[in-house]
Amino acid sequence: MQQQLAMGIDLGGTNLKAALVDRDGRIIAKASQPVDVSRGPDAVIDEMVAMVDSLLAGRSCDRSDLVCVGVGSPGPLSIREGRIHHSANLPGWRNVPLRDTLSEKLQRPVVLDNDGNAAAFGEFWVGAGGGCNDLVMLTLGTGVGAGVVLNGALVHGHFENAAELGHLIVEVDGLPCPCGQHGCLEQYSSASAVARRVVTAIEQGQACALAAGFQSGQPVDCVNVVQCAKDGDAVCTKIWDEACMYLAVAVIDIQHAYNPARIVLGGGMSSAGAFLLDRITDHLTRRCWSLHDDLPVITLSELGTDAGVIGAAGLAWRHANDAS
Amino acid sequence: MQQQLAMGIDLGGTNLKAALVDRDGRIIAKASQPVDVSRGPDAVIDEMVAMVDSLLAGRSCDRSDLVCVGVGSPGPLSIREGRIHHSANLPGWRNVPLRDTLSEKLQRPVVLDNDGNAAAFGEFWVGAGGGCNDLVMLTLGTGVGAGVVLNGALVHGHFENAAELGHLIVEVDGLPCPCGQHGCLEQYSSASAVARRVVTAIEQGQACALAAGFQSGQPVDCVNVVQCAKDGDAVCTKIWDEACMYLAVAVIDIQHAYNPARIVLGGGMSSAGAFLLDRITDHLTRRCWSLHDDLPVITLSELGTDAGVIGAAGLAWRHANDAS
Repeated sequence: MQQQLAMGIDLGGTNLKAALVDRDGRIIAKASQPVDVSRGPDAVIDEMVAMVDSLLAGRSCDRSDLVCVGVGSPGPLSIREGRIHHSANLPGWRNVPLRDTLSEKLQRPVVLDNDGNAAAFGEFWVGAGGGCNDLVMLTLGTGVGAGVVLNGALVHGHFENAAELGHLIVEVDGLPCPCGQHGCLEQYSSASAVARRVVTAIEQGQACALAAGFQSGQPVDCVNVVQCAKDGDAVCTKIWDEACMYLAVAVIDIQHAYNPARIVLGGGMSSAGAFLLDRITDHLTRRCWSLHDDLPVITLSELGTDAGVIGAAGLAWRHANDAS
Repeated sequence: MQQQLAMGIDLGGTNLKAALVDRDGRIIAKASQPVDVSRGPDAVIDEMVAMVDSLLAGRSCDRSDLVCVGVGSPGPLSIREGRIHHSANLPGWRNVPLRDTLSEKLQRPVVLDNDGNAAAFGEFWVGAGGGCNDLVMLTLGTGVGAGVVLNGALVHGHFENAAELGHLIVEVDGLPCPCGQHGCLEQYSSASAVARRVVTAIEQGQACALAAGFQSGQPVDCVNVVQCAKDGDAVCTKIWDEACMYLAVAVIDIQHAYNPARIVLGGGMSSAGAFLLDRITDHLTRRCWSLHDDLPVITLSELGTDAGVIGAAGLAWRHANDAS
């Protein structure tokens, strides 16, 4: 009997991931490999094809077992056209018809969506969504990726670029963002931003427990900063607290914009667990409105680094079901 | 032949409005009267019934000509339950089953929604929406009311209180809002806020062209402030410019949250027309991102003070069509 499986692909600036996923959202097989996106779309699409075939072969399947392939990619992109416009994380890629090219090579239907949307859909489908139909996910990693599910469907908007919540302005005239704005959430509340701000403080000569290591060549990362903040280091405590405060401001904006049941936090910064959630809650308690009891539950990702591939496969399943 | 009409009702803290609306969104007859909401829900609902009957009688119609009645009301409220939880603008109203009470008295189906949502739906249906399916409306009046239409439907969210965009935080630790937050949009960018901030400046002894009038008892309103800003008064110019700057910040947050095609501005502050739009555009040009060309068109309300009743009637029509 023919198996029914979907393939989820997560295209990142440094890694290519794929997973074979059944209709209940279980991963049957998965793979991850470094990718050199500077080789251009054609080479990378060929790597996707090889990865798909290899995962299928490992489970004694072939392409005919795939109901559909879902791809999550950095944007901005066009979902309707299946085309990546361009992306800070995919230098040199311009106007790439990824969906149709991959579909032609695989001879299977393909759907394309934003990587933040795919991860949100994964958590909604079989992760931290907990059965609720209205959910927002923030992936606190290199930047802040995001996706929004309302009434059980991703929000795309007219220009198909909705839910870019890393670029909510949380501090007017705040830190500059490469996007051109000032005071974007992702300049304060991503794993990279937290580390970067500690490095800046060290370079400015502020007394910080991570200074000596940094000056002797050890990189500062978000995990170090969290540990130092727990140990009472003043600089790390302040920067971590500000990261949590600005997340609380973003949560309030998200509450008023979408009124979701849940906000799911993923990405590197979320590995701090209760040390993150408790601080956000402290700030929320003091900052959110008292007019109505409609604050979403804030929770951690359940799918972790698999959210993207599972969500992409979930979108593929949904596409296949809608088409049938 | 029986006529097919819907009734739209707009319940405000000071006025009750109603309109008889055909299936194309044209007003057949309308009425507006002061309302004393402190008399309580029963008395006010009886006034609604009398208003409905009077409008029908004036067009030689009766209740059987109504396919449905739509009511826009201040919230927070439950759309599913047709119930007003409570509202700053309806003092003493608690947990009022407005939909079912009105429906029983009229013996017609009734739908209830938030007043900001109703106005947004009106502009989407037959106003400044211009045929687009993804639209946000901001009503810049006493506060900032809002409504969001995505894919042709209002966004309500899990707690049915989405699109409370007057409470987006545009200035961390900014002016206190009666809602309990600090730095809400409506503390800077509503008609009332603009007037209030000028009064505060006068009371602080700042030199302002409106000071003499204010001190001899003339109230300051948004229209005066706009005129004085046009005439070059420094205080009015600064406060008007800040109102427009914070609106630009809110537009950017709305762009990234929903990615709508249009943002429609209504309410008292929007009567400034180009003097409002041009200033917002100036700030947007400097503040919005350059990653993607997805800035919504910003436009003025076309339905003006009729947006609420037309939108409520539109929701009634939609309900009737869905039911049939």
